[in-house]
This record gives sequence, structure tokens and C-alpha cells, in this order.
Amino acid sequence: MRALLPLAALIATAAAAVPPLPTGPDVNALRDAALKDELAWELTEALTTEVGPRAAGSAAEARARDWAVARLTALGFKNVRVEPFPINGWVRGEERAEVLAPFPQPLTITALGNSGATPAAGFTGEVIGFSSLEALEAAPASAVKGKIVFVTHRMAAMQDGSSYGPVGRIRRQGPTIASRKGAAAILIRSIGTDRHRNPHTGSQDWGEGAKPIPAAALSVPDAEQLERVLARAGAPVRLKLTVTPRFVGKRTSGNVIAEVPGYDPSAGIVLVGGHLDSWDLGTGAIDDAAGVAITAAAAKRIMDAGQPRRTIRVVWFGAEEIGLVGGRAYLAAHRGDKHAAIAESDFGADRVWRLDAKVSAAGVPVAARLAQALAPLGIVAGATDAASGSDIGPLSATGVPTFELQQDGTRYFDLHHTPDDTLDKIDPKQLQQNVAAWTTLLAIVANDATELGPVPPTAAH
Amino acid sequence: MRALLPLAALIATAAAAVPPLPTGPDVNALRDAALKDELAWELTEALTTEVGPRAAGSAAEARARDWAVARLTALGFKNVRVEPFPINGWVRGEERAEVLAPFPQPLTITALGNSGATPAAGFTGEVIGFSSLEALEAAPASAVKGKIVFVTHRMAAMQDGSSYGPVGRIRRQGPTIASRKGAAAILIRSIGTDRHRNPHTGSQDWGEGAKPIPAAALSVPDAEQLERVLARAGAPVRLKLTVTPRFVGKRTSGNVIAEVPGYDPSAGIVLVGGHLDSWDLGTGAIDDAAGVAITAAAAKRIMDAGQPRRTIRVVWFGAEEIGLVGGRAYLAAHRGDKHAAIAESDFGADRVWRLDAKVSAAGVPVAARLAQALAPLGIVAGATDAASGSDIGPLSATGVPTFELQQDGTRYFDLHHTPDDTLDKIDPKQLQQNVAAWTTLLAIVANDATELGPVPPTAAH
Repeated sequence: MRALLPLAALIATAAAAVPPLPTGPDVNALRDAALKDELAWELTEALTTEVGPRAAGSAAEARARDWAVARLTALGFKNVRVEPFPINGWVRGEERAEVLAPFPQPLTITALGNSGATPAAGFTGEVIGFSSLEALEAAPASAVKGKIVFVTHRMAAMQDGSSYGPVGRIRRQGPTIASRKGAAAILIRSIGTDRHRNPHTGSQDWGEGAKPIPAAALSVPDAEQLERVLARAGAPVRLKLTVTPRFVGKRTSGNVIAEVPGYDPSAGIVLVGGHLDSWDLGTGAIDDAAGVAITAAAAKRIMDAGQPRRTIRVVWFGAEEIGLVGGRAYLAAHRGDKHAAIAESDFGADRVWRLDAKVSAAGVPVAARLAQALAPLGIVAGATDAASGSDIGPLSATGVPTFELQQDGTRYFDLHHTPDDTLDKIDPKQLQQNVAAWTTLLAIVANDATELGPVPPTAAH
Repeated sequence: MRALLPLAALIATAAAAVPPLPTGPDVNALRDAALKDELAWELTEALTTEVGPRAAGSAAEARARDWAVARLTALGFKNVRVEPFPINGWVRGEERAEVLAPFPQPLTITALGNSGATPAAGFTGEVIGFSSLEALEAAPASAVKGKIVFVTHRMAAMQDGSSYGPVGRIRRQGPTIASRKGAAAILIRSIGTDRHRNPHTGSQDWGEGAKPIPAAALSVPDAEQLERVLARAGAPVRLKLTVTPRFVGKRTSGNVIAEVPGYDPSAGIVLVGGHLDSWDLGTGAIDDAAGVAITAAAAKRIMDAGQPRRTIRVVWFGAEEIGLVGGRAYLAAHRGDKHAAIAESDFGADRVWRLDAKVSAAGVPVAARLAQALAPLGIVAGATDAASGSDIGPLSATGVPTFELQQDGTRYFDLHHTPDDTLDKIDPKQLQQNVAAWTTLLAIVANDATELGPVPPTAAH
């Protein structure tokens, strides 16, 4: 349950009680100037064009790190460095599907992360369809054994992305469930809200006792086509599947870190960032070139406005897409650092519409001051006891104060993890609003000395 | 130039002069009942699901003819038959493109009809970009020879589809121009108005003296990416292209014909229809399952209302996509038939917004009566001296009276010739409005004895 908007209540009933910022830059002026930001667009365009797709552990991700070090250094950040870590490599191969009977036709698919492979010449089998993950879970193994399982669903587009968690279970757990029941392969309806022939990939891990089987997503129109084929077929539906990804052993990924040193080391570090890797199908514009660009552009604005009290640490995480590997590596390396507050941008580039925070009672007035400063950007005040992020999730769970500038996610899952995640999907005006919001956050939080924690730790992600 | 809306003028200034329909069914009742039509949706769903993609000359197109004969017969049409004709076969192969330097990354392409092939292992060459077909035409052969030509453009979405003619020259003529200048291959920005990674295929023929070279379309986002790569590259852009279609000699296509016999053979035939073949990438829902379904559903409604004066001939053309081959074969076989009027639905399934006609002065009052009956469907009156259609173009050019129920094409070129041409793109309510418009057209034109021609022949398509 989300808390009852304490920030909004605080602002509405006790605005006079919110103390002004004691020292530091003119927050409103910085915020408004950031609405004309061009750096975030420039970084997003450069990363998506000069590097393009940059899957975890690939040569392209390594080029992205080189690009990042060069750009962050040229922008004037200090202590720019790469912190490498190993990952388990997996690379996509061929991927084709074809209904052989009773209505021969090709279907568009893409393998899910860590999918097993068919023989190079393909696998032919009978399709058994399920309208939900629960229906698959309830099916006896005898009904599934040796077959190609197909799981469909309906997913609504939600402003806060809240349909992704429950529907996404089909991708995260479906392959393991199907494998345990002896299925030969699994096809899922893409975890997405669009209607294009671009399937959505995404990560999944094989649970205990589940051997890798071919696991792929159909595009939404293809999933609906297969539903119709199953409904009309008076006979078994036979499908040929060719999916040939490979597990390629240890590869190297890494986090790229850059800093704006603060003048008061005892005040701790404000960490902001996004992730540098992307899925291989698109150029990773909304996921997450925009996030790394927005947070770096905001940090640059604070740097240029004069030395902040707290050190701002910009982290561009590696290997987020395959399971927050960069976030966990960062936590392992930096558990001892004093993080005053952390925040990540990893939900696209559409407008920020809500501020959430997870801070102590002492931190609530700072969050309230931030909410007041964000209101002219059209941002509403949310919780003070709940905020999250992807790579920062493991660190946040240890009890570090966390802010979340939540973006409008209504169209995020139209594009997420598809070939369609490209630069043209970013609205430059909304990108600028993001930079203004992040500039405001840093202007206030990096120039304040208030301890925002401790907050209670939660179960690690 | 479009004529000055003579229909609208006629209706506005002389409504009283439009005589009522002398005999026959209640046009308004038929029109309004058709707004609840379910047959057109059912046919569209069945064709796109049970057959799916049905490229000219393929086994799938042959299955579509079998399906069509069975369905039209079951619906009660008479004289249901296939009129076969030969075509030159061409089948798609592999298609991949990859920037090798300076920014390595894959690009999404699809071969254009009649494209030549690269070696199976691909062709690597330098890209030379042009911002228009005119720029390519103006370039010296020495600048192009041995290179991969890239032609981009900007195409606006237009309600009447009028941007397709001029921009489409890049697809129709670009490959021949590039080949004549000695280019190794040509890539074009898709002739489309969407922003998805689904390239638009389409037909083109090699002009005199132009040997087939690989010719493919980049999706719109990929074309913009290649523009950015060319703009940022400080060095030649090298690209690897693998395109392996094949010319496969003579294949068979065919037109499917069904009739509602009229009681007055001397009054001639009213031909309505669409085309049964589709491109291979999508399931041909808007292009043109909807067109065959709309016209058949309307004809069925007139048949069920009592025998019409004129024979209604429903023609589902084959091999439209590769150059109106079915339309030309129909003309060759039926030049001697008395066609009272002809009309085709081949521009999607969005609402009909305008009636155009090409009729003699004697036919204008009939067109005016039709325009009056269509007005409650939100359809405006257009020309009386200009109307067209795809497959019926060759026949229309001989001077046969022609009607056109023009559909809203604003989003047509988002989907046209792409994998995204699937059933989910059809709005059932707008499909019903189409059936109502075509039912109205047939109710009036098939029950009238007025000679609508002759109209002057034009240059054949």
C-alpha cells in the first residue's frame, strides 16, 4: 500500500512550516534554466547513434564504457572511472517460428534472456495454449510434456507501470514452470502494451531444477494470431521453432562512475544515475540512454553553479538488463560509503509526474521543500516512505534514503525491450522537464546538511 | 486538378432536382442496417487468420483462392470461379544490414519486390547518402559506382494518400536510377509515415538497361539512424548487406469472381471488389482483406434484399501487389463485357470520407442521389470527373464509369506493406461504416437503369 500522500498533506496544511533553503544556489532559477537543456538530448543522441545497441557483456557495451569515460571527462566531472565486474554471457542466435498446420504462416518471435536453444534445424511440436500463468501452473505435467507451451494475457498501459510486476511474472517464472513440467519450449505473449510486430525480450532465470528450454516472446499481434489459430483449428496446431542462442561463459561488464566533489565530505554522497547497457534489439534510447543523460545533465548544471555541499556521484550501471548485476556489484564495492541519498532514472523520458521519497521523519521537511520546488513542473507529491529504482534497489534495500522522480509510464511498455526503443521515441520537451526535475532534486538535496536517514532496511531485491 | 465539387454544388443548389429512386429497395434502410454488419469482420478475420500472408504466386495465395471460392459459394453468390493467369515469380530470402564502421550496429531492412541479390555471404561497401531522388539523379555516375546508395526523404501522412505518389517514386524509380549509374545496391527510407522498426516493402520494376541490384528499404527509425551515422562519421561509412531473394520463373495467380445476377442483362454489370493477394510481411488485413470483405458483405446485403436490376460482379483480384497483374488479366478477359460501373476498395478499413465519381453528364444526377444517401454516414461529395482504384485502373482508363468511396488514409501508410498490417489495426466500427457506404452505392447504382457513361478514356495505367 502506498502511504497517504504525506508530502501533499504537509504542503497543503503547513506550507509556512517548510523552511527555505538556508544557503546554496537559487533552486528556482536552476530549475527553470534546465527547461532549455540541450545536453541530455545530445548525450542520448550520441550514445544511441555512436554505440547503438549495447547488450550486457558485449563489445558494444565495452565501447559504451569508453564513450562514457570520454564524455564524462570532457564534461568536467572528476574521478571518472570504470569498475569492472564479471557476468554470465548469453548471446542471441537465429529466431523463427512458423505454424505448419492447420494454417501455415510465419510468426514473429524473439528469445528471452537465458533461453535454451532448439537444434539448428529447428524443433517441431504441438502447441498447448494457456490464458494465464495460473492456468499453466494448474495444468498437469502430462498435458504439457513434450509440447510447446503458449501463455497469453492482457496487459493494461498504466501511468505508474504497475501492470508490469504481475503480468511480468509470465516472463520471469513461466519458462521455469514450463520446464519443470517437461515442456519442450515456451512462447509467451510479449510483456508489452503496443500493437506492433516487435516482440519484447527481457530477462528470466532458470529456477532450481529447471533445465533451459527454448523460451521466446511473440509480438502482441502474433500472440493474438496464435490465439485465433488455436480457437479456429479443428486439429492440433503444429509449430516449428528455431531459436539458437548460446551461453558463452564469463564476460566483462562494468559501472562507470563520475563525481562532482562536495565541500563537506561528512555530509555524504548523493548518488544519481541510470544504466548504460541496453537490450540488443533497439538502441536503448528510453531504456536507458535517457536516464544516464538526464542525470548527468542535471549533475553538470549543479557543478557549473558552484561546488555543492555533498559529493554528487553519477553512476552509469552496467548489466542492468540481465538482473541488476551492476547494481549488486556497486553495492558490494561501496557498502561502506556514506550515501546521503540515492535516486535513479530508468523509466523512459516522458514527463516526471510524481515525487516519491523514502526518508526518515527528519528528512520529510527536505522532501517537502523539494516537492514545493517541483510543483511548477507539474509534479505531484507522493509518498515519503516508499521509493525505488532498478540498479539502486539493492542499495536502497539496505536502508539508504531514496528519492524517485516517477515518469509517466503510459507508453513505456509499448517500447520497452523492443526494436522500437529508438531515439525518435523521445520527446525533447519532456526530456527537458526531466532534466529540470533532476536539477531541482540535486540543487536541494546536495546542498542540504540534513540527515535524511536512517530508514528501515527491507528485504533485498 | 480536382474538379470544383460539382456534386456538392449540385446538392446545395438544386436538391429538389435530384429525382428519388424510381423503384427498388429502401436505400436508407439498407444503409442503416449495414452499420451493424458482422460479415465483413468475419471474412477479414478468417482470411487473415486461416491464410495469413498471401504473396502473389505463392502457395498461400492459392490457398486464399480455395478459401475464397468456398466462402463465396457458401454465401450464396452465383458463377463463382477462378480465372488463372501467369506471373513472374520472385521470393524473399535472407535480409540483413549491418554498419561495420565507424559505428558498428545492425539496421533493419526488407527487400523491395524484384530486388537483386547479394552473394549469400553478403556484400560490403561504402554508403553514399542522398536527401532526395532528385539529388541521386543529379549525381555523376562516378560518385555512385560500386557504392551502396541510400536515399532518404520526408513523407507526410495525408488523408487522401496524396504523398504516396511523389514520394513513392523513390521506391519505383530509385533502384533503376541507382543501377544505371553503376551502384552496387540501393537502400531507401521506407515509403511510410510510421516510426516503427518495420520496413515497408513494395513493388518496383527494373527499367530498360538496368540490371537488378540489391534494393531494400530501411525502417523509418533505421533510415534516420543511418542519416545520423553519416552526419557524425568523420570517415567513410561501411555497411554489410545480405539480401538473397530469388527470381523463380513462372507462377500461377488468379482472379476470383462471384456474381449476383441482375434481372436486366441489358443494364450491364456493376463490378466491385478488392485484391486477394497481399505482401508477405503482414497478414494483409488493411491491404486488402478489408477491401474484399467490405465489397462482398455489401453485395451479399443487396442479394438478400431481392434481385437487383444490374448484375453485381464481385472480383477479388490476384497479384495486385506486384503491378496490378490481376487487373490487367481481368481487362484482357472481359474487355467485351458491358460494365455499367466499377469501384474498388483498396485503401484500408478506416471510414469513407468522400465520394468521387467519373461519370458522363447523364450520370451526374445518379452520383448526386448517391451523395445524398451517403451524407448521413459523414461522407462528403467530391468530383464527378475523377475516380480511381488499383486493379480497376486499367479498365477505368478505357472509359468505364467509375466510383470511388475514398477512405481516410491518414494512418494507412503507417501500416502499408509492413509486418504491422494485421487484424488488430482494423476498427470494427469504421469497417461497418465502409460496408454501409458500399451497400448504399450498390443499392442505388445496381438498381438504376441510367447509362453512366461514356466517359473519355485516359492513358492506361
